[in-house]
Amino acid sequence: MPNISEKGIQMPASPIRKLTPFADQAKRAGKKVYHLNIGQPDIATPVGMLDAIKNIDFDVWAYTSSEGTLTYRTKLAEYYNKLGYNITPEDILVTVGGSEAITIAMQTCVNEGDEIIIPEPFYANYNGFACMSNVVVKPILSHIENGFALPAISEFEKLITDKTKAIIICNPNNPTGYLYSEEELDALKALCLKYDLFLFSDEAYREFCYDGRTFISPMHLEGLDENVVIMDTVSKRYSACGARLGCLITKNKSVITSALKFAQARLSPGMVEQIAGTAAVDTPDSYFEEVNKEYTLRRDTLVNRLNAIEGAFCPNPGGAFYVVARLPIDDADVFCQWMLETFDLNGGTVMMAPATGFYSTPGSGKQEVRMAYVLNTADLDSAMNCLEVALQQYPGRTI
Amino acid sequence: MPNISEKGIQMPASPIRKLTPFADQAKRAGKKVYHLNIGQPDIATPVGMLDAIKNIDFDVWAYTSSEGTLTYRTKLAEYYNKLGYNITPEDILVTVGGSEAITIAMQTCVNEGDEIIIPEPFYANYNGFACMSNVVVKPILSHIENGFALPAISEFEKLITDKTKAIIICNPNNPTGYLYSEEELDALKALCLKYDLFLFSDEAYREFCYDGRTFISPMHLEGLDENVVIMDTVSKRYSACGARLGCLITKNKSVITSALKFAQARLSPGMVEQIAGTAAVDTPDSYFEEVNKEYTLRRDTLVNRLNAIEGAFCPNPGGAFYVVARLPIDDADVFCQWMLETFDLNGGTVMMAPATGFYSTPGSGKQEVRMAYVLNTADLDSAMNCLEVALQQYPGRTI
Ligand SMILES: Cc1ncc(COP(=O)(O)O)c(C=O)c1O
Ligand SMILES: Cc1ncc(COP(=O)(O)O)c(C=O)c1O
Repeated sequence: MPNISEKGIQMPASPIRKLTPFADQAKRAGKKVYHLNIGQPDIATPVGMLDAIKNIDFDVWAYTSSEGTLTYRTKLAEYYNKLGYNITPEDILVTVGGSEAITIAMQTCVNEGDEIIIPEPFYANYNGFACMSNVVVKPILSHIENGFALPAISEFEKLITDKTKAIIICNPNNPTGYLYSEEELDALKALCLKYDLFLFSDEAYREFCYDGRTFISPMHLEGLDENVVIMDTVSKRYSACGARLGCLITKNKSVITSALKFAQARLSPGMVEQIAGTAAVDTPDSYFEEVNKEYTLRRDTLVNRLNAIEGAFCPNPGGAFYVVARLPIDDADVFCQWMLETFDLNGGTVMMAPATGFYSTPGSGKQEVRMAYVLNTADLDSAMNCLEVALQQYPGRTI
Repeated sequence: MPNISEKGIQMPASPIRKLTPFADQAKRAGKKVYHLNIGQPDIATPVGMLDAIKNIDFDVWAYTSSEGTLTYRTKLAEYYNKLGYNITPEDILVTVGGSEAITIAMQTCVNEGDEIIIPEPFYANYNGFACMSNVVVKPILSHIENGFALPAISEFEKLITDKTKAIIICNPNNPTGYLYSEEELDALKALCLKYDLFLFSDEAYREFCYDGRTFISPMHLEGLDENVVIMDTVSKRYSACGARLGCLITKNKSVITSALKFAQARLSPGMVEQIAGTAAVDTPDSYFEEVNKEYTLRRDTLVNRLNAIEGAFCPNPGGAFYVVARLPIDDADVFCQWMLETFDLNGGTVMMAPATGFYSTPGSGKQEVRMAYVLNTADLDSAMNCLEVALQQYPGRTI
């Protein structure tokens, strides 16, 4: 029997899915499981987007051009230019989800064996994409005490070698919800220019900024055009995760030209999705206002309930729909599994993502969990009731 | 300005698209261009598939499981089991087009620096996928004289080293249309077992077999379960290229388990597509009968017209919707460009794909072009009228 590849062995399994068998088992045992573990919003997709699907009008479901239809890219440019990105349709490569944008960005910009610095905790699948591209991830620790703000630039500089090729930021951040400030981005700009680094900006959660905060993109910074690569997706913006529609944006002509070659090999992004994506750009502001109101409420509910738990701590993040909380526990992996396997409160329990999966530095995040507030506030309250009691019963509690 | 990666430089551009600027220019000059260059069928997508899209009934366009929905995989297993593949839904990984199935198969099964043998001419994007995965393609020449039959097994054996990990066949073949016989597949089976190789079978054109010929898959062969990986797609089967829906099938448990990790990193295939793909399996036989009747007519028209041209030769292939023809010309790249740039017959000209793009061995295919018969017979006749006259006028004609 032929063996699978080394890469096939090394490829990390998704840490978010590790506990799924225990959740399935809990459900088979009749428990109600509150899913705070994954970033699948329960928010309705904009009606205009769904109508665009229902109203398709073609006979042949054909390939589009590899870079995406001009219609869609033109409409996207309109969206981004409203945000002040100052781009043209030619700066956009339409991708199969943000995931493909990340893969293509890595393959296009980073040599094998070269290094990317990423503040941790970070979106776990960056590890998988790095493995696929033979790129080395250099994590740099951010801290729950200051809400997971950008680590000091001096910490970045300690990690920079002649193999360092790029920095990835995810803004607002998954898993921490942290929203980078203009000062932080300016500091990153100076760093990238000083060391000639790409700045990859994963903006999957751009629309989710709370308390009147404004989102700043590296695209807003002067003089950084050749360094910035935006990796974006409609997944979260329009609650359209199943669309598999994203894009890569850069004003660096060598990057976009080379990225197109990777896109040509896989022929085309989805055609119906691009029709829906074009319609999505006309989603009324009221949609986002309502969604953000709802998420703000949920975040406040969750953060307040968490901080009311003895020994627990949860920063109040400025964006996305995640929080990372520190709990009075010995081991988040054991605790999260115990919640599913052993615990229930009136038949209910909570599924959370152990934060260890978002750290590369061994031992980090052992007392932390990530929660996605993708449930309504009543369910969040029930979930927190469970958590509160669980923390009184869990054998590995540290308080 | 940071540099792009070596891979970004080496990544091959799509040879099929190289002449697109000349085609665009011809169109701007008012010429009618007959597109025989790309495998985008003009056949209507099954109504049931399009209706499934129009009738979607959900509020949240959500991720599906990374391996694809159980509903779709169950339905797919039904389709494959009718063909005698004897598989379960667990043997299937739903992918974003056949393209992703190929990438995942390579990454899962072949170490970096290891070799894959592919009979040439072959589907040009295998080069791109190999580049992305650092896999080395070892081409093995097949010949127009015998219709591009499988090269002798002794020729394969000459290429086998301790780095050889897999063989790719595309059956029926793009670009040649050749349909492998049971004897050829049996010979490949013995070879793969002898040297412990994976046999990747790209079956994108499975449904397109003519003159009553039957399609044989490596899945039909006894004792090869651990070696076979099928890479499939709905693109051509249902004329649904824009769906970006394919799958990888294998009974090798290590392969499917590892492949799933690559799939988890990119989260999910398209949700609407899987709904449409589920409906597609119920496409009535009459659809395929009509389509195959139409393609047979086109193939016969094209092959007859080509062989009537002095100095030209075109085998009559058993499947797919491509032919590779030898023309009395000095250089297919120059000729195909000349057709677009310089030539017209009553304002019409033909776009073809120089076969050089499908060969890896330098100098091969210089007198050959690939044509996709994705136009109706009247248009094919007009295209052949153009070609006939062009071959009398082309300065580099060899006859
Ligand atoms: C930070 C981040 N980037 C990228 C993605 C990929 O999303 P998609 O491939 O659905 O666009 C996700 C999905 O959760 C994410 O959280
Ligand atoms: C031989 C072969 N394999 C795979 C593909 C990829 O098709 P898709 O990604 O559309 O499924 C094609 C497309 O033309 C092809 O010809």
